[in-house]
Amino acid sequence: MTLAVRYTGARVLDTASVPTPAPGPGEVELAPAYVGICGTDLHIFHGDMDTRVATPAVLGHEMSGRVVRVGPGVTEWRPGDAVTVMPLRWDGTCQACRAGHRHVCQNLEFIGIDSAGAMQQRWIVPAPTLVPLPSSLPLDRAALVEPTAVAVHDVDRAGVRAGEKVVVVGGGPVGVLVALVAQAAGADVRVVEPNSHRRLRAKELGLATWDPGIADIPDLVLRWTDEAGADVAFEVSGAAGGVNTAVEALRVRGRLCLVAIHPRPREIDLHRFFWRELTLVGARLYDRSDFERAVALVADGTIPAERLISKVVPLTEAPSAFEALEGGGDVMKILVDCGDDSEGATP
Amino acid sequence: MTLAVRYTGARVLDTASVPTPAPGPGEVELAPAYVGICGTDLHIFHGDMDTRVATPAVLGHEMSGRVVRVGPGVTEWRPGDAVTVMPLRWDGTCQACRAGHRHVCQNLEFIGIDSAGAMQQRWIVPAPTLVPLPSSLPLDRAALVEPTAVAVHDVDRAGVRAGEKVVVVGGGPVGVLVALVAQAAGADVRVVEPNSHRRLRAKELGLATWDPGIADIPDLVLRWTDEAGADVAFEVSGAAGGVNTAVEALRVRGRLCLVAIHPRPREIDLHRFFWRELTLVGARLYDRSDFERAVALVADGTIPAERLISKVVPLTEAPSAFEALEGGGDVMKILVDCGDDSEGATP
Repeated sequence: MTLAVRYTGARVLDTASVPTPAPGPGEVELAPAYVGICGTDLHIFHGDMDTRVATPAVLGHEMSGRVVRVGPGVTEWRPGDAVTVMPLRWDGTCQACRAGHRHVCQNLEFIGIDSAGAMQQRWIVPAPTLVPLPSSLPLDRAALVEPTAVAVHDVDRAGVRAGEKVVVVGGGPVGVLVALVAQAAGADVRVVEPNSHRRLRAKELGLATWDPGIADIPDLVLRWTDEAGADVAFEVSGAAGGVNTAVEALRVRGRLCLVAIHPRPREIDLHRFFWRELTLVGARLYDRSDFERAVALVADGTIPAERLISKVVPLTEAPSAFEALEGGGDVMKILVDCGDDSEGATP
Repeated sequence: MTLAVRYTGARVLDTASVPTPAPGPGEVELAPAYVGICGTDLHIFHGDMDTRVATPAVLGHEMSGRVVRVGPGVTEWRPGDAVTVMPLRWDGTCQACRAGHRHVCQNLEFIGIDSAGAMQQRWIVPAPTLVPLPSSLPLDRAALVEPTAVAVHDVDRAGVRAGEKVVVVGGGPVGVLVALVAQAAGADVRVVEPNSHRRLRAKELGLATWDPGIADIPDLVLRWTDEAGADVAFEVSGAAGGVNTAVEALRVRGRLCLVAIHPRPREIDLHRFFWRELTLVGARLYDRSDFERAVALVADGTIPAERLISKVVPLTEAPSAFEALEGGGDVMKILVDCGDDSEGATP
């Protein structure tokens, strides 16, 4: 048996013992060390994804850990290996897969949403999802690899080049990671964030910030860019106003990368897209090269992961951590420590 | 003096004699032969662009004609040369110009909107706007070069490749031209158009059409594409529903090229942009290479320009032609013949 954090229905999480089957052919059993709580986990907790999530559901997909044992036919991993998981399974046959875009497979399984996640002491995953971690990388920091891979993918989709001026609308964990990755690519970055705590955290990470509550952002952008507009904007806020801010920020031929989830249609100024020949690109998840790049950025300190971690809680306290996170902006990333409560959780 | 079609205020056009100054340094005097009536001319006629257009305004920017005389310093043109005009003047100094996107110059002058257009017997334009026409190309057909250049630009912006499945939403003159240019690029094209006359005209031009009034377009697209979705959609309708049709038509990583003008913001399903990693690109006007390619496509018959011309009216009847065009879908392109009413209009 293994202790697991389970979603059982809207606004109800528990911790319970669940069975630990042996890994099957092509599978690996992991001992998760740290698991980050993601915005998607909060959506599930709120009951917003009940049509997709089968209860009880073990949550979690931003993780680090070690291999405990391997199933039949798995030769490339051995017990003790430090790993993270790229939590995607694709069908390999749909048009998206055939075109090489497996991460947006039309029948994608996202492990941790569509099947059991990492917030437990033992976790069985397909061997191809494993991504190796360098032994020098502390496992708490490595739990930031998954959201960093999202940011790497976003910056790549937007085609950010050195010297470009980039506006990131939304300074939560993903927004800050996008800003840091864009900055590492040589861009000049501004983060637009109304929450003062998040602005402060972003500043501590070396990012320049703007407060939309006291400044006219389009006006600031014009002054910052010699009246031209920004080269790239990332919409990471999920707010209707955030989309407009991003559109208004862009220069002629500017690129807007859509990172946030907008469950409802948004009113968009299409005339500006026409007039300035703007481009909008949707960006979702990551592929393996994004993940490997994210491991490198976290390992070499380009992403100062330890400073993005607001708090680490033991697995048994994960349910109350979810409730605390609902307050919103005053924390960046909370990690669930899956190893503290059980002997042998780390081999 | 020269006879000109003038817009003098909402829904009022007249024909009047206007002075014919000599061409200044770097300018050329043309004798327009044929001038197409464009949707933008209709917008002006309706009074929708009164904040931009100074009255009285001579309309027209889709033209063919011949050089009559050249101003001081113009050496590359001589009387009798057959030409069309790329009706753009850029400042050459703004960020867009410096980045090589002069056609979307932040201070662009569009000749025929921001200054006098071609619906007159004599027309003075800057020499750099002239584009040569092959002597074999009849001048009536050559009046279709400008809208063809729009279509060439759109297909280029969308990056259409041979073998791709392309949906064109809107079967007016620009939609049909986009469809023909995409087809010439090797794409498999469907034109979505509710007006039966326009569908008939499109079919006569060798295009496959769908009637959104009797068919579920997203369903047709799925069956046509083996459930994947189209590679590219062009939104040429200007209607809110047209945007949705285009978005729904696209496969994972599909590209939506926004050609039509949407004066008001539109509700867009951004979640689909995120989920399928779609791209939206705005496309406006053309550059010189688009114009030169358009001349070639009209000259070699790839664009059967003569079959797109519904009617040719003399200059004096242009005002009533505008009124007839308001009926909408039953005509494709009406040309104004600027040479018929005056001795010497063609040298």
